[in-house]
Amino acid sequence: MANKDNYCVIMGGGIGSRFWPFSRKTLPKQFLDFFGTGRTLLQQTFDRFNKIIPTENIFIVTNAIYANLIKEQLPNISEKQILLEPARRNTAPCVAWASYHIRALNPKANIVVAPSDHLILKEEEFLNAIEKGLDFVAQSEILLTLGIKPNRPETGYGYIQIADSAGDNFYKVKTFTEKPELELAKVFIESGEFYWNSGLFMWNVSTIIQACETLLPELTVKLAPGKDVYGTDREMEFINENFPACPNVSVDFGIMEKADNVYVSLGDFGWSDLGTWSSLYDLSEKDTNGNVTLKCHSLIYNSQNNIVALPKDKLVVIEGLENFLVAESENVLLICPKDKEHAIRKYVNDAQMQLGENFI
Amino acid sequence: MANKDNYCVIMGGGIGSRFWPFSRKTLPKQFLDFFGTGRTLLQQTFDRFNKIIPTENIFIVTNAIYANLIKEQLPNISEKQILLEPARRNTAPCVAWASYHIRALNPKANIVVAPSDHLILKEEEFLNAIEKGLDFVAQSEILLTLGIKPNRPETGYGYIQIADSAGDNFYKVKTFTEKPELELAKVFIESGEFYWNSGLFMWNVSTIIQACETLLPELTVKLAPGKDVYGTDREMEFINENFPACPNVSVDFGIMEKADNVYVSLGDFGWSDLGTWSSLYDLSEKDTNGNVTLKCHSLIYNSQNNIVALPKDKLVVIEGLENFLVAESENVLLICPKDKEHAIRKYVNDAQMQLGENFI
Repeated sequence: MANKDNYCVIMGGGIGSRFWPFSRKTLPKQFLDFFGTGRTLLQQTFDRFNKIIPTENIFIVTNAIYANLIKEQLPNISEKQILLEPARRNTAPCVAWASYHIRALNPKANIVVAPSDHLILKEEEFLNAIEKGLDFVAQSEILLTLGIKPNRPETGYGYIQIADSAGDNFYKVKTFTEKPELELAKVFIESGEFYWNSGLFMWNVSTIIQACETLLPELTVKLAPGKDVYGTDREMEFINENFPACPNVSVDFGIMEKADNVYVSLGDFGWSDLGTWSSLYDLSEKDTNGNVTLKCHSLIYNSQNNIVALPKDKLVVIEGLENFLVAESENVLLICPKDKEHAIRKYVNDAQMQLGENFI
Repeated sequence: MANKDNYCVIMGGGIGSRFWPFSRKTLPKQFLDFFGTGRTLLQQTFDRFNKIIPTENIFIVTNAIYANLIKEQLPNISEKQILLEPARRNTAPCVAWASYHIRALNPKANIVVAPSDHLILKEEEFLNAIEKGLDFVAQSEILLTLGIKPNRPETGYGYIQIADSAGDNFYKVKTFTEKPELELAKVFIESGEFYWNSGLFMWNVSTIIQACETLLPELTVKLAPGKDVYGTDREMEFINENFPACPNVSVDFGIMEKADNVYVSLGDFGWSDLGTWSSLYDLSEKDTNGNVTLKCHSLIYNSQNNIVALPKDKLVVIEGLENFLVAESENVLLICPKDKEHAIRKYVNDAQMQLGENFI
């Protein structure tokens, strides 16, 4: 029986421009079925949490422009469970609003906050960790984050350094380090003290609101005055007026790196933030020449270590490519070396400047 | 005023598999607008001849499966001008049938027979040569072919060696040579005696029927018996019964190489048979890095000497490719080195074997 005090907030407002052209402004990564499994990343995230959290306690916070996509992809939740941000303001305002909203419904709520677009391969271990984490934060005034045992010196992730054990895989957090250089990342891995920051958080609703009001007063000065309207018919009017005035700040930077009651729950969940094509390549099944084909059909000759992603039902024939990304979606085809994928932002900009909104 | 005795037969039944995936079994090359000009190759061919041949004297011979495409693309011609072959039998049966058909309408007809999928850049010179050629064949019992002044030792074309001049750019033909090796092609070019065989023919209807009956009796034994039904309501019944029994043989091999009354009209018409992606590349406008973009939008970085052809309104972003072909049409994308294009036949076979008819 799912604990009625446990809540989930799925953050689904990202743009995912690093996966262009697969991911588009009008259809970001979380709304895509990357692996052709039949469920989008958002749907997989919902399905996963719904195994341990009551359906009516799962909230999606997203940008207002994605309202219809959310309703289409998650027809089983009510409109009340979709919190539509009138402006894009990073994760701290998102989390603060969701917390005030949930406190109005249940002041004892324990909340897991999760991105909508990550991959979890080991679901059972993951859900066990979430349930244990929610129990932990129900009993202690702590901010808990999920740390992932690293398997390579990845420079695209944030790292968490652990301090003393609080028992049962929970550790006090010593430091956060954003995307380190490769040499530093190698030192981190060798030390055994550093874990990847998953961007997934757990806390009691009182604890997170207390942390926001202490550490981000410039944010809560905008949202706290609505305490009597959260959960009422007047909530959206208040949000539409005040949310756009919130500062643009992340939970990691604004709260987790500054608070002194931060703990981490450690595990190995087959996790990826699917942040880049290369991370997708690393995770995916390869043919004998190291080529990855996502969704489409492919015939590949004299080619190694490529990743190709085209719409289902399409055929791509490739000869003579090595370490390339070939991705197509809608009206855009991208062909570039895998190690040039940081240039995607430039391609998108050039496409917008030279050709307009139609291709981004 | 166009000469009422002049006729044109456009051969439009080819499959064009060398341009896969741009050219498809259901939509071969002649039905495509390769350069995004607004007119397909077939339409361009029709438009060109219609400047010197009366509209009602232009016939299209094609496979029955392309009947609707022809009607769509050439709405100004009547159904009577479309000769639908019930089976694919190469060019000699096509030419023989068209000749019997036209003789029934006008026994004095002079005919130019042309492929539907070639490119002519110098239209005025071309049409002058055709008009002069038709005058020539009206007065002499000769088979005339159009020879193109070669500009490179192309190994993909047939060559015509000229003998004595018959005046005014007409020469008696000495030999035909099919696709020579590169060394031989170089010798041909240096000699100044060899011209490319365009596959475009002119003759009086009596001359070509005489040649067919003498040189290809195994063909005319099937088609000559219909002499009383050509041009009547019973023609198609006769053709549907007898055409499939005709031998599969080309005009070049079956007639031109064997006849002793073959002449060639020489010229330089900016001609290409558009036989391969490389020939298309050579003909097309290039950016400063030698890249050709056909129809679509492109953003090309650190790349040289590629040809990309995607549907209009699509954007292709390319980085780090050299000497590649990138072609997409419908549900197929092909990426291969330009010098591997002879392998396209293999790709098509593999696609058919492994994935079925849907991709060919």
